[in-house]
Amino acid sequence: MSALISVIETAAWLKENDNYLLITHRRPDGDTLGSAGALAQGLRELGKTAYVLENHELTPRYAPCVTDYIAPADFNPDNVIAVDTATLDLFTKNALDYSDKISLCIDHHESNTNYSEFLCIDSGRAACGEIIYDILMQLTGSISQITAGHLYVAISTDTGCFSYANTTAETFAVASKLLELGAPVRELNKKLFRTKTMGRIKIEGKITSNMEFHFDGKVAIAIITREMMETSGANEDDIDDISNLPVSVEGVGYGITIRELTSSTDCKISCRTVPPNDANALCAKFGGGGHKTAAGASVNKTVYEIKEEILETLSSNENIISLA
Amino acid sequence: MSALISVIETAAWLKENDNYLLITHRRPDGDTLGSAGALAQGLRELGKTAYVLENHELTPRYAPCVTDYIAPADFNPDNVIAVDTATLDLFTKNALDYSDKISLCIDHHESNTNYSEFLCIDSGRAACGEIIYDILMQLTGSISQITAGHLYVAISTDTGCFSYANTTAETFAVASKLLELGAPVRELNKKLFRTKTMGRIKIEGKITSNMEFHFDGKVAIAIITREMMETSGANEDDIDDISNLPVSVEGVGYGITIRELTSSTDCKISCRTVPPNDANALCAKFGGGGHKTAAGASVNKTVYEIKEEILETLSSNENIISLA
Repeated sequence: MSALISVIETAAWLKENDNYLLITHRRPDGDTLGSAGALAQGLRELGKTAYVLENHELTPRYAPCVTDYIAPADFNPDNVIAVDTATLDLFTKNALDYSDKISLCIDHHESNTNYSEFLCIDSGRAACGEIIYDILMQLTGSISQITAGHLYVAISTDTGCFSYANTTAETFAVASKLLELGAPVRELNKKLFRTKTMGRIKIEGKITSNMEFHFDGKVAIAIITREMMETSGANEDDIDDISNLPVSVEGVGYGITIRELTSSTDCKISCRTVPPNDANALCAKFGGGGHKTAAGASVNKTVYEIKEEILETLSSNENIISLA
Repeated sequence: MSALISVIETAAWLKENDNYLLITHRRPDGDTLGSAGALAQGLRELGKTAYVLENHELTPRYAPCVTDYIAPADFNPDNVIAVDTATLDLFTKNALDYSDKISLCIDHHESNTNYSEFLCIDSGRAACGEIIYDILMQLTGSISQITAGHLYVAISTDTGCFSYANTTAETFAVASKLLELGAPVRELNKKLFRTKTMGRIKIEGKITSNMEFHFDGKVAIAIITREMMETSGANEDDIDDISNLPVSVEGVGYGITIRELTSSTDCKISCRTVPPNDANALCAKFGGGGHKTAAGASVNKTVYEIKEEILETLSSNENIISLA
């Protein structure tokens, strides 16, 4: 079990120690990378040595948050800090060497498994970046323009540009401060929320124009074949959050994405629902699982076979398609 | 010329007078309707009589902001207030009766033509709703949950959910206060920014999958025919901001939408650019105009004829496709 420490205690601990290595999670997003970049930058401004452990799944979208802080291969840290990383399962391969010596974890996930010596956690915050903001303000009384930019990436991406249900009054208040501190909000918003790659626009066009609606529009099914990915020139980054698309259509209760992976019979189901529809229950029938509103499953059948089975499953249970 | 008055003076004037009719602009958006609804609600909470003049272009999306305040046909106001309405050209037909007796205009458009007796304007604010917030806080020291909801609609929609370049630190600060005051931010965000109508998803799919890229992807052209609209079941609401779509693709300098209106030779060009590309200059060649980054033109040719002419125009001027 970790010792829970407050923002004030965390700031004091960071001031006392030195030689930090920061760890980000697998499939790194804006929050883990923005949080790590901001903490590294803030610690360096205090005169500390701080690096971010290389993350081999880093994508160009968020790379600018950490490129200036990547640890050299021979860096030997005194203290290892994990940010926005709820469990050891989320550690990258090269981070596993440190898994039993994590001094501190800073996180906002309720599901955190207490793997670190100290844990600074607040599951009421929309982004880990909000906690990093509080810690740095406590530590230095101010935040530089560079740090503010990294924190804006963390907070804006984890809230879908302030549109997700996790957005709080504090989230907006921190965003207001970051803009005052000179975070390049216009440029970041344009890049993160108002720009689509060519691959994204092409694959989205194919998915959207082929999306199927069943049960009076209550069930939307999107199919992504390897052929669609290839002809669109789309990569993993391009379809990052695409499984949210079918459920975003008005009146849809079940939004289902079926995607071909390495072969035509290696498929992944992603299901998103509007409550009370149960994504977990549907995916459990295919050997998968997850949460009530977001779940997934891996299935060794073709997308068309899977689609038929999903439709059968949904039609055989009338309750399952009654919507709120 | 209007007499410019401050937020404090505006609040004092509102306190002194009574029997208000509020006017919203043509093609009413979230800002004009949210501002009018909030002002009507706030004034009523002060014990004043306040109504919003019916706007026949009201769409279901924003109707909840004003439905409780629509003026009865026989209402005879003592004071008429226009909100978020820069010019008399933007008055609805039924508002024109009042065009020479507007007591007050509250606005954030630099282009305001000073048509009202008093004018409370701040062109530095992202939304008129931000100014209404300041006025109501000055007037009553507090804002009710209902008013906060209307103001959130105004501010969030005029900033594209805080993603547009007009978003300021004040915008975020007001949003933070509105959430604290109980504005139903989750529900509004889901409805306004995370839901697409069936018509929207279908027309977007058609537009996106047929989008053409020219000059190494620097020019994107989207075509919307009447047939596409019909087969998608899409209405005007569904394609409200669709002209922003082509320019949102990475690397595009000119995003052009060509749309068939009442016949195949009644078309509208909408052009959006990334600076320094000049949308106004392009549209001027088709008898239209606008701003440097957003302009339009009406042309009596087919979409395909127009497309060819646009490509010719752009290719005949090498500078015009050099991008920042």
